[in-house]
Amino acid sequence: MTIEGLSINLATVREQFDFAQAVDHCLAQGIRAIAPWRDQVAQIGLDAAARIVESNAIQVTGLCRGGMFPAGDPARRAAAIDDNRRAVDEAAALGADCLVLVVGGLPEGSHDIAAAREMVADGIAALLPYAKANGVPLAIEPLHPMYAADRACVNTLEQALDICDLLGDGIGVAVDVYHTWWDPKLEEQIARAGRDGRIFAHHICDWLVPTRDLLLDRGMMGDGVIDLRRIRASIEAAGYKGPQEVEIFSSQNWWKRPGGEVLSTCIERFNTVC
Amino acid sequence: MTIEGLSINLATVREQFDFAQAVDHCLAQGIRAIAPWRDQVAQIGLDAAARIVESNAIQVTGLCRGGMFPAGDPARRAAAIDDNRRAVDEAAALGADCLVLVVGGLPEGSHDIAAAREMVADGIAALLPYAKANGVPLAIEPLHPMYAADRACVNTLEQALDICDLLGDGIGVAVDVYHTWWDPKLEEQIARAGRDGRIFAHHICDWLVPTRDLLLDRGMMGDGVIDLRRIRASIEAAGYKGPQEVEIFSSQNWWKRPGGEVLSTCIERFNTVC
Repeated sequence: MTIEGLSINLATVREQFDFAQAVDHCLAQGIRAIAPWRDQVAQIGLDAAARIVESNAIQVTGLCRGGMFPAGDPARRAAAIDDNRRAVDEAAALGADCLVLVVGGLPEGSHDIAAAREMVADGIAALLPYAKANGVPLAIEPLHPMYAADRACVNTLEQALDICDLLGDGIGVAVDVYHTWWDPKLEEQIARAGRDGRIFAHHICDWLVPTRDLLLDRGMMGDGVIDLRRIRASIEAAGYKGPQEVEIFSSQNWWKRPGGEVLSTCIERFNTVC
Repeated sequence: MTIEGLSINLATVREQFDFAQAVDHCLAQGIRAIAPWRDQVAQIGLDAAARIVESNAIQVTGLCRGGMFPAGDPARRAAAIDDNRRAVDEAAALGADCLVLVVGGLPEGSHDIAAAREMVADGIAALLPYAKANGVPLAIEPLHPMYAADRACVNTLEQALDICDLLGDGIGVAVDVYHTWWDPKLEEQIARAGRDGRIFAHHICDWLVPTRDLLLDRGMMGDGVIDLRRIRASIEAAGYKGPQEVEIFSSQNWWKRPGGEVLSTCIERFNTVC
C-alpha cells in the first residue's frame, strides 16, 4: 500500500535513522516520498543516495537546504554561492522537486537587516541561472520571524514572493505551516503564489502551546493550534498538487521515540487531521 | 537633571521594586516617565499610585495592559470587555498617555485564528466608546508572531493599523521594536501610522542572539541585533515625539541585578545606542 500525498522530511527521524534506514522504514510503511538534508546525503554519499532513490522510484519533494547567503565580506558571499551550486548539483542528482532555500540571517555583528535582505536577493539572483540550467527549481522558505536574526531574514510569504517577482521563473516558495500559520495575509499570499505557479513545497507539523524551545520544539500534526486542513485547502485551491511533507524538529519528544513509531504517527495524523 | 525622552516600563524592574520604590529610583536617576502594569498599580492601590504620579509630575507613557479579548463563549468575552473598562478607568486615573492592548490569542482548544481576530476587532469596537468618553487612547500592541497562539493574534503593524482603520479615532498602536524589528514592511507601516496620527507609544529593548526563552529573554538596548536608531528615526519622522519606553523581561539577567544598576544601564544605553 502506498500512502499517497505524504512525504517525510528526514530531519523528522534524523536522530533515529541514517538515509538508507529512513528510506527502508518509509517504504515499509508505504511512504514513497522523502526530503533529505544535505548532511544526510553526504553521510551515505550522493551516488548511493541517488541509487536508492532511483531504484525505489522515490519522489524527493525537496533537498534541504541551500541558502545562507548573507556574509560580512564579498569572498564569503561568493563562497556561499559556490556551496549553493553544489547543492543544486545534489538536488539534480537526486531528482528533487526543488532545492529549499533557508536564506540566512544577519552577518555576525550586523544590525542591518535591510542589507542582509539585499544580500539574499543578490545571492539568489546569482544562483538562479545555474539552477535553471540544471533543471532544479529554487524554493525560498520564509522562516518564522523568530529566526530573522540567525537563520532567515525572509519571514513572510509576501516578502518571498516579492523576491520571486524580481527574479522571474525557476524560483518559488516552500510554504511551511510552522513558519506561516500566524500570518494574517497567509491565504491571500498563497493564492498569489498559486496564480504565479510558485508553490513548490508544502511542509507540515504543528505549533505547540507552550513552545519550550525556539528551534527544537515543533509538534506533531494535531498536537498544536494550526488549522492544517484550512491551510491545505488554500494551497490545493492555489493549484499545488504535491505531497505534504512532514518536518518536525523535536529534541525532547519525537527524536527520542522509535523511528518506526514516529513514521506511523505521521501517517495516522496525516489521515486524520491534515 | 532630567533624562528627557526616556520612560521605564516598570516590568523592567518588577522583580526588584514595587511601584513606589520604582518611582523613587527612577526619580533619583532623573527619569520622569514610567509605564506601570496593572498588577503593580493594584498592589499599592490606584489612589496611592495616582497620588505618586501627580505629586511628582510623572508622565505615564502607558498603562499595561488591556486586551485579551478572545474567549470561547460570549459571557467570557463580555467579562473581558468589563475588565478592559476597569483598565480604562485606571489609565484615566493615572493620566496615562494610552492603555496598551495585548489583544489575546486563541481561545483554549481553538484552531481558528481568523475567528480570534474577529473577536479582537469586536472587543476593541465594544471598548472604544468608553475609552474615548474617558479620554484614554487605546494602543494596540502588535506582538511578535511567536506569541500569536497564546498572547496576541495581532502580529504586524499593518494588521493593527487595518483594525484601527475600521474603528476610526481614539485608537492607535504601540510600536515595540522587539515585536516588529524583523518586519519587512516596518518602515512603510510606521509612516502610515504617522500619517494617521496613530503612534501612541514606542517601546525599546533588544533581540538577543541566541534568544533562550520565548518570553523572558529580552535584551538591553545594544546587546542584540536591532537597529534601534533606524527605527527611532522612522518613528520620529512619522511624527511621534513621546519618550522611548524601555520594556525588558529578563528572568535570567536583568531581573537578577540590582534595580538601580538596571536603571543606570538603561540611561547609559539610551544615551549611546538608541
